[in-house]
Amino acid sequence: MDVYLDNNATTVVDPKVFEEMKPFFCDIYGNPNSLHKFGAGTHPKMVEALDFLYEGINAADEDDIIITGNATESNNTVIKGIWVDKILKGDKNHVITSEVEHPAITAACKFLETQGVEVTYLPVNEEGVLEASKVKEFIREDTALVTIMWANNETGKIFPIKEIGQICKVAGVAFHSDGTQAIGKVPVDVQDCNLDYLSFSAHKFHGPKGVGGLYVKKGSELTPLLHGGEQMGGKRAGTVDVASMVGMGWAMHLATSTMAIAYEKNHVSKLRDKLENAILELPETIVIGGKDNRTPNTTLISIRGVEGESMLWDLNQKGIGASTGSACASEDLEANPVMNAFGSDSELAHTGVRFSLSRFNTEEQIDYAIDVIVNAVKRLRGISSSYAYAPQSHKSEL
Amino acid sequence: MDVYLDNNATTVVDPKVFEEMKPFFCDIYGNPNSLHKFGAGTHPKMVEALDFLYEGINAADEDDIIITGNATESNNTVIKGIWVDKILKGDKNHVITSEVEHPAITAACKFLETQGVEVTYLPVNEEGVLEASKVKEFIREDTALVTIMWANNETGKIFPIKEIGQICKVAGVAFHSDGTQAIGKVPVDVQDCNLDYLSFSAHKFHGPKGVGGLYVKKGSELTPLLHGGEQMGGKRAGTVDVASMVGMGWAMHLATSTMAIAYEKNHVSKLRDKLENAILELPETIVIGGKDNRTPNTTLISIRGVEGESMLWDLNQKGIGASTGSACASEDLEANPVMNAFGSDSELAHTGVRFSLSRFNTEEQIDYAIDVIVNAVKRLRGISSSYAYAPQSHKSEL
Repeated sequence: MDVYLDNNATTVVDPKVFEEMKPFFCDIYGNPNSLHKFGAGTHPKMVEALDFLYEGINAADEDDIIITGNATESNNTVIKGIWVDKILKGDKNHVITSEVEHPAITAACKFLETQGVEVTYLPVNEEGVLEASKVKEFIREDTALVTIMWANNETGKIFPIKEIGQICKVAGVAFHSDGTQAIGKVPVDVQDCNLDYLSFSAHKFHGPKGVGGLYVKKGSELTPLLHGGEQMGGKRAGTVDVASMVGMGWAMHLATSTMAIAYEKNHVSKLRDKLENAILELPETIVIGGKDNRTPNTTLISIRGVEGESMLWDLNQKGIGASTGSACASEDLEANPVMNAFGSDSELAHTGVRFSLSRFNTEEQIDYAIDVIVNAVKRLRGISSSYAYAPQSHKSEL
Repeated sequence: MDVYLDNNATTVVDPKVFEEMKPFFCDIYGNPNSLHKFGAGTHPKMVEALDFLYEGINAADEDDIIITGNATESNNTVIKGIWVDKILKGDKNHVITSEVEHPAITAACKFLETQGVEVTYLPVNEEGVLEASKVKEFIREDTALVTIMWANNETGKIFPIKEIGQICKVAGVAFHSDGTQAIGKVPVDVQDCNLDYLSFSAHKFHGPKGVGGLYVKKGSELTPLLHGGEQMGGKRAGTVDVASMVGMGWAMHLATSTMAIAYEKNHVSKLRDKLENAILELPETIVIGGKDNRTPNTTLISIRGVEGESMLWDLNQKGIGASTGSACASEDLEANPVMNAFGSDSELAHTGVRFSLSRFNTEEQIDYAIDVIVNAVKRLRGISSSYAYAPQSHKSEL
């Protein structure tokens, strides 16, 4: 049986989404900026898609939602736009982020550091959450931007975006959140949270790869990252990928309705809990960051004595796809940065396995996965030298 | 009858290309960076696509081809990478381009100017071509980049890329070409032309929208525009859009084989010539820039007394899609910048209509289009005040 439990890395395109996309490859293929009917023929479904996007994150009509290539582009647009507009041209020189952001934020911030910008990487608490008070503590006169993820890709932990938004509003500092792991899993309301910018990526919520979005509050416009044609009102140049935009709109629609969010909470989380509880019955296993306040689909579990990579190998042999952490960094074998942030010792830091579910998983799949995982843990612990020597202190350590 | 003659704006996805893309939406959907089979399952077709891309532009194995969101992103990556690496960090401060580039180049250069960079916009000659000697004349000690398009999007005019490449090589200046309008129409050989960088966009050669490429010669690597994960060897972050990459590979393969290029030259150009000659039989019509040295599919025709926009409207009523120029700027009604570059007077500057064909056009379509166009010209000239008053001097003026 094939069981895909790596939905925080990417998701299958919902067949309904693909149906909506199909006409825009070989039939309605005009450039939306063209003045003839081949171009204009794309407009009704683009308008519909945009409506779905505005509705999905509760954007106000006067705000912008810019269609980008992915959340990485959205994130870079904000960080480098702030750099150009408020740091190079203005009198600010400081950015605040957390130490557990996605590489699209961290690497862009590291780039800013090479340009002389000061960046504060706020630590998370023992539950893996950034406390809003930390942001308040570190905001300065010259802070140009606070950028904090909505939900963590590794642990699923949800960050106090509303509180941080309030702090930024009072301080008059621009606030961006990478919402990539939140959309479709928990309610996301940009107005309620006082956001200036929100990034998201369609392929994390059963839309296509290669398309993302950037919410920009009215009045918070930035110098574009992609200069060129007049697409997106001059805010993001490049011919709009109509098929992908339509797909993202529908994916947003299917993922963010009240019913969809309720389904995540009630059904997806039930399957996640079943899987997680079965693994926790094995001795010396823990949920990194604990069970509270997470996205309904994610669990990051440390299994003492079992190296994450070996576990993935065993699971893969049985048709199960999981992850040791962000797929974006999976090709280097550095310890998981989130595990490091928790202060795990170096051996533990390699024992995390992330299971991330979706609405396409079934109970039958989860039962099968539990069976495979339990057997894999037994096999791997049987051949683990570190587990044989030091099994006793795992739970107390974290 | 529907006749699409706006292939320089965008093209229909070749059904064969779409067939190759299809499995990567709902079936083989893993993240290529994931370690399990859902991810690895994407690799063979990605490798095949990359092979097609290398072959299509004759890139050397040690060079990079980076998958981007479109040629606009590729162009911005080069221009802003040069800015960061050679201007902000280095001792250069000058960029050379032409005055008839696509907005993705021009707007990025204008941005550089706001940052204190000096940009030289070289004029084209009376045939709409940039002469290589001009580049040589304007290269300075502090020139960081020469960026010149391979073929013009409006006129189809082919620029002397090989000669310019030789000049840049001798001068030790980085050389980029926007090859968007050349791929699939004329042979493109990056090694033969001494290019450091080449941009292209799949949707201009019957691939999908939302994906492009950037060729980077070994040793010419730049700071990325999109910082983040380790995709593309850290050179362009963001989850790879597998479906689109596969589609672009196949589109390149189908467009750039010797046979395909020969077909463009022999069959597409024949249809273009038939259309063009029929229009030129009408009095006071001219091909902007003349007939020599163009891509086989393009003609930009000025029809005295007929405003381009009105012409498009008439054609659109009869199912024909054409353009007054770049779709990327079609929503503003500024005079066509290429027409301006030719020094046309302001009335003439609004009379250009661009017809751009593809391998999907048939002779029957062209016959129909000729009929419609001739009637439209008659009708529009009949109601044109300017044509009635000053018809006599059109040909001698340009």
